[in-house]
Amino acid sequence: MQMLKTHHVFGGTLSYLQHHSAATKTSMKLSVFVPNKTGTLPTLTWLSGLTCTEDNFTTKAGAYKVAAELGMIIVAPDTSPRGDNVPNDTSYDLGQGAGFYLDATQAPWSEHFNMYSYITDDLQEFMLKHFPVDRSRQAISGHSMGGHGALTIGLKNPELFKSISAFAPIVAPSQVPWGQKAFTHYIGDNKDNWQHYDACELVKKLGGTEKTPILIDQGLADGFYETELKPELFQQACSEVGQKLTLRLQESYDHSYFFMSSFIDDHLRFHHNNLCAD
Amino acid sequence: MQMLKTHHVFGGTLSYLQHHSAATKTSMKLSVFVPNKTGTLPTLTWLSGLTCTEDNFTTKAGAYKVAAELGMIIVAPDTSPRGDNVPNDTSYDLGQGAGFYLDATQAPWSEHFNMYSYITDDLQEFMLKHFPVDRSRQAISGHSMGGHGALTIGLKNPELFKSISAFAPIVAPSQVPWGQKAFTHYIGDNKDNWQHYDACELVKKLGGTEKTPILIDQGLADGFYETELKPELFQQACSEVGQKLTLRLQESYDHSYFFMSSFIDDHLRFHHNNLCAD
Repeated sequence: MQMLKTHHVFGGTLSYLQHHSAATKTSMKLSVFVPNKTGTLPTLTWLSGLTCTEDNFTTKAGAYKVAAELGMIIVAPDTSPRGDNVPNDTSYDLGQGAGFYLDATQAPWSEHFNMYSYITDDLQEFMLKHFPVDRSRQAISGHSMGGHGALTIGLKNPELFKSISAFAPIVAPSQVPWGQKAFTHYIGDNKDNWQHYDACELVKKLGGTEKTPILIDQGLADGFYETELKPELFQQACSEVGQKLTLRLQESYDHSYFFMSSFIDDHLRFHHNNLCAD
Repeated sequence: MQMLKTHHVFGGTLSYLQHHSAATKTSMKLSVFVPNKTGTLPTLTWLSGLTCTEDNFTTKAGAYKVAAELGMIIVAPDTSPRGDNVPNDTSYDLGQGAGFYLDATQAPWSEHFNMYSYITDDLQEFMLKHFPVDRSRQAISGHSMGGHGALTIGLKNPELFKSISAFAPIVAPSQVPWGQKAFTHYIGDNKDNWQHYDACELVKKLGGTEKTPILIDQGLADGFYETELKPELFQQACSEVGQKLTLRLQESYDHSYFFMSSFIDDHLRFHHNNLCAD
């Protein structure tokens, strides 16, 4: 573990770190906000979108005021393995910065692009070892590609994440260009394998009336809304199995961090209510 | 006037724009947040620090939630003229990105580096023409070099700015390396001329018991605190003339936007109270 820098913010401590991941076989960077509270604390894992690093949410979301007030840790990892020895692509939606939170099975990606295992195994282990995380009170959220990550990882790991939310998530990657491109390269042509990383498919199998509550915000001025995001498909899938979903369509908001900063406080309070109700 | 992009944020509208400045003889970029309120509105001019553009405060300060609540416009201009035809320097603290909010008199800077006139004349005219600014209810604030700008411009223009604040400002540029370097290049060796842009000197001449109230926040873990900032010099100068100053020394905070984001709400409320008391 290497501490890169720390900042005091809203009375708590924000650290930029890197550590070795067995899953990605690389060093992974992340930021961790720890409020100035005692004891083990509820913790939110935040997954960012295409082209982002550990820095975007950290500097732009404006999340730490309410996180400090609620006493929540927030961890924001990078979106993919990186480095000169890690495969890449010239397009923004494949390779470094576009890990899609899955374990790749296809060459040349399968050696390093294992973000699903990184988030669920290595990052968990790292956080529990070094920070006062309450393992039983954890939530997951993310934006766009990271919203896809939050929904799929959250649905598949209900014992780990008791509360799920997303901003402008890719809910049906098997049906949209971003997801189809990523899945073809990372996990191959067999669409049966795509279902394991498709929130709409997963919620039909794993969701239900008693399952983890989900909050989604979607801006109606988001340029990707109709081509890549399609939250109504997820709403439909949830209603088929009685999965509790709050989908909020936000007039005039776009795909940017200005949209997220406007509603991040609601998400933090949603998670805090779910994690700390009793 | 050219609109570059707009975002919906906290119910208001954030615009990135550029317009021609007669003072700098260049196109100048800025961001403007306008809350969703009717009528003319109190307005804060925000001046950023060395190396910053119109984007840093806009994306990182987390100011728009409370600005929306208070109904305040915030305008954040770039920190200097820019362009291939504008003089520059290889160091970060001179030339483009380092305008120091003064009118340069020395070659090669004097043709374009006239940020004092840009802020007090061109930007005022532009804002009053295109946005619902209440001319009589305006405040000014900034960070580091921008804190120097806010203090000096605010002190010299009490009819324009009724409330002044700063984060980690350069209060005595004539006495510290950043200011001495900038002043030597921009306005020459004659130190008599430096006094017109030195907050400590200006407040002794222009401050007083009945003058514009000032709020300053300074982090005690700020690496520039003792070499470049020295807020105690300003505190001493204010006390000599009875100028009302609230100087808050914030334990553990550094020079970053994480520091500013932690206290920007206090500054917005301070300005709102001063501008809208009756």
